[in-house]
Amino acid sequence: MYNLSEITALYDERFNKNQLNFGPESLYEPINQTMANSGKRIRPVLLLLACDLFKGNLNDALNAAFAIEIFHNFTLVHDDIMDAADIRRNKPTVYKQYGLNSAILVGDAMHLHAFNNLLKVPAFCFSEVMKTFSTAALEIIAGQQMDMDFEKRNDVTVNEYLKMIEYKTSVLLAAALKMGAIISDANTQEQERIYNFGLNLGLAFQIKDDYLDTFGEGEKVGKKIGGDILRNKKTYLWLTAWNQANEAQKQTLENLLSETNETQKIDGVLSVFKELKIKEQTEKIIQHYYDLALHNLETITVKDERKTPLRNIALMLQQREY
Amino acid sequence: MYNLSEITALYDERFNKNQLNFGPESLYEPINQTMANSGKRIRPVLLLLACDLFKGNLNDALNAAFAIEIFHNFTLVHDDIMDAADIRRNKPTVYKQYGLNSAILVGDAMHLHAFNNLLKVPAFCFSEVMKTFSTAALEIIAGQQMDMDFEKRNDVTVNEYLKMIEYKTSVLLAAALKMGAIISDANTQEQERIYNFGLNLGLAFQIKDDYLDTFGEGEKVGKKIGGDILRNKKTYLWLTAWNQANEAQKQTLENLLSETNETQKIDGVLSVFKELKIKEQTEKIIQHYYDLALHNLETITVKDERKTPLRNIALMLQQREY
Repeated sequence: MYNLSEITALYDERFNKNQLNFGPESLYEPINQTMANSGKRIRPVLLLLACDLFKGNLNDALNAAFAIEIFHNFTLVHDDIMDAADIRRNKPTVYKQYGLNSAILVGDAMHLHAFNNLLKVPAFCFSEVMKTFSTAALEIIAGQQMDMDFEKRNDVTVNEYLKMIEYKTSVLLAAALKMGAIISDANTQEQERIYNFGLNLGLAFQIKDDYLDTFGEGEKVGKKIGGDILRNKKTYLWLTAWNQANEAQKQTLENLLSETNETQKIDGVLSVFKELKIKEQTEKIIQHYYDLALHNLETITVKDERKTPLRNIALMLQQREY
Repeated sequence: MYNLSEITALYDERFNKNQLNFGPESLYEPINQTMANSGKRIRPVLLLLACDLFKGNLNDALNAAFAIEIFHNFTLVHDDIMDAADIRRNKPTVYKQYGLNSAILVGDAMHLHAFNNLLKVPAFCFSEVMKTFSTAALEIIAGQQMDMDFEKRNDVTVNEYLKMIEYKTSVLLAAALKMGAIISDANTQEQERIYNFGLNLGLAFQIKDDYLDTFGEGEKVGKKIGGDILRNKKTYLWLTAWNQANEAQKQTLENLLSETNETQKIDGVLSVFKELKIKEQTEKIIQHYYDLALHNLETITVKDERKTPLRNIALMLQQREY
C-alpha cells in the first residue's frame, strides 16, 4: 500500500520526463510547459489511490492517470481563452503567452493526447474505463456550456448551480476514482461508492473555491479577495443570497451589479451576505458534502487503514485555505 | 457492391436523423447545424467505399464513417476561428453566428463525439482503426500549426508546403480509406496501397484548391478569384513562383505583398505567374499526383470493376471546377 506522497512521486517519476511530442516545436513547447506547471495533480493521484485501495496493479493505471491529467489541463487551456484569463498558477496562460490560435490548437492536441494515452489501458478493463471517461468528458463540456449560459440569465437556481459545478468540476474527480477502481477490478458497487465519494468531495471543493474567493484571507489565497463579486459571478454565495433576499436586499444586490467603485461594491455585497448569514450557510453546505464524501468512503468494504490516503486527501482539500 | 450514390444514400439514411445530443440545447443546436450542413461527406464515403472494395461488412464501418465526418467538421469549426472566417459552405460559421466561446466548446464536444463513435468500431479491428485514426489526427493538428507558422516565415520551401498540406488535408482522406480497408480485414499491403491512393488524391485535391482560387472561373468557384493573392497566402503557386523568380521578379513579388490596390495586386502577381508559367506547372503537378493516386489504385489486387466507384470519385475531384 502506498501513501499520498509515494503515489505522487510514482506518478511524477513516470511522467516528469514524458514529453508529449508530435509536430512542430511551436505546438509542443506550450503543451509541455502546461503539463510541467500542472499544479497538484489531484486527478491522477486520486485515480492511482483508488486503484491501490482495491489492491490493483498501479502499472495498469499509470497511463489512465496521465490521460486524465492531460485532459484536465486541456480543459483549462480552453477555459482560459473563454475567460480571457491572463494568469494560471502564477504563470501566463497559453492564451496570453502564445495567442488565441495557438491556445485553441494546443488544447486540441492535448485532448487528442489524452485519448491516445487512454488507449493504452489494459484490454480487460478498456471498455469500462473508456465509458466512464467519455461520460465524464461530455458532462464537463456540458457544464462549461451551462456556466456560460448562466452568465446571461438572472433566474439561475441554487440547484441548477450545483448541477453545473457537479458537471464542470466534480465528475472528473469522481471518474478518476472510478477508473482506478475499474482498473483494479473492483465490483460495480464499490465503483459506484468511490464515484460518489469523488462527486461529493468535488462539490465541497468547488463551493470552498467560491467561499475562499470572498471569505478567504487574501495573502493565503494568493489573489485579490472579492474577484467573483467584482465580476458579478453567480456563485453559490451570490445565488443563495439572491434566493433568500427580501425585496430591499434584492434591490441592493441588483444595484450593486452596476456599481463601479470596487470597495463600495465588495462592501455592499458583503453587508447583504452578512445579513443573510451567507458565510455560515456556505460553511455548512461545504461540511455537508464533505461528510457525505466521508460517508461514501466508509461504505467501501476494504480494511479501514487502506482508506487513510484518500481520507487524508479529502481532509487536505477540506482544510485548505487557498 | 455499391456505387457512389448508393453509398452516400446509405450513409445519409443512417446519420441524417442521428442528432448528437448531450447537455444544453445551446451546445447541441450549433453541433447538429454544422453536421447537417456538412457538404460532400467525402471522408465517410471514401471509408465506406474502401470497406466495400474489399467486400467488408458496411454495417461494421458506419460508426467509423460517422466518427471521421464529425472529426473533420470539428477541425473546420476551430479552423474558422483561427481564420476569423465568417462563411463556410454559404452559411455563417459557428464562430460568426454563436461567438468565440461557443465555437471553441462546440468543436471540443464534436472532437469528443468523434472518439465516442470510434469506440463503437467492432473489437476485431478496433486497435488498428484507432491507431490509424490517432496518427492522422495528430498529423492534422501538426499540419494546422505548420500552416500558422508558415505565415510568419519568408523562407518556406515547396517541399515544406507539400508536407503541410499532406498533414492538414491528405492524411484524413488516406486514413478514412485505410480504416475502411482495416474494417473489411484487408491485408496490410492493401491497406498501405489504399492509404497512398488517398494521400496522393488529397495532394492533387489541395493543390487544385490553390489553383482554382487563382485560375478558376469566379462564378463557378463561388467566391472572388484571387483571394489567396490578396491575403498574401503562401500557396503552391506563390511558393513555386518565389523559388523560381529571378531577382527582378522576386522584387516585384515582394513589393506586391504590401500593394493595397486590389486589382493592381492581383494583376501584378498574375503577370509574374505568367512569366514563370505557374499555371502550366501547377496543372502538371496536380496531374502528377492524380496519376500517382490512380496508379496506387491499380496495384490493389481486387477485380478492376470493383474499383469503379473510387475511380469515379477521384475523377470527380480531379475535374471539379469549384
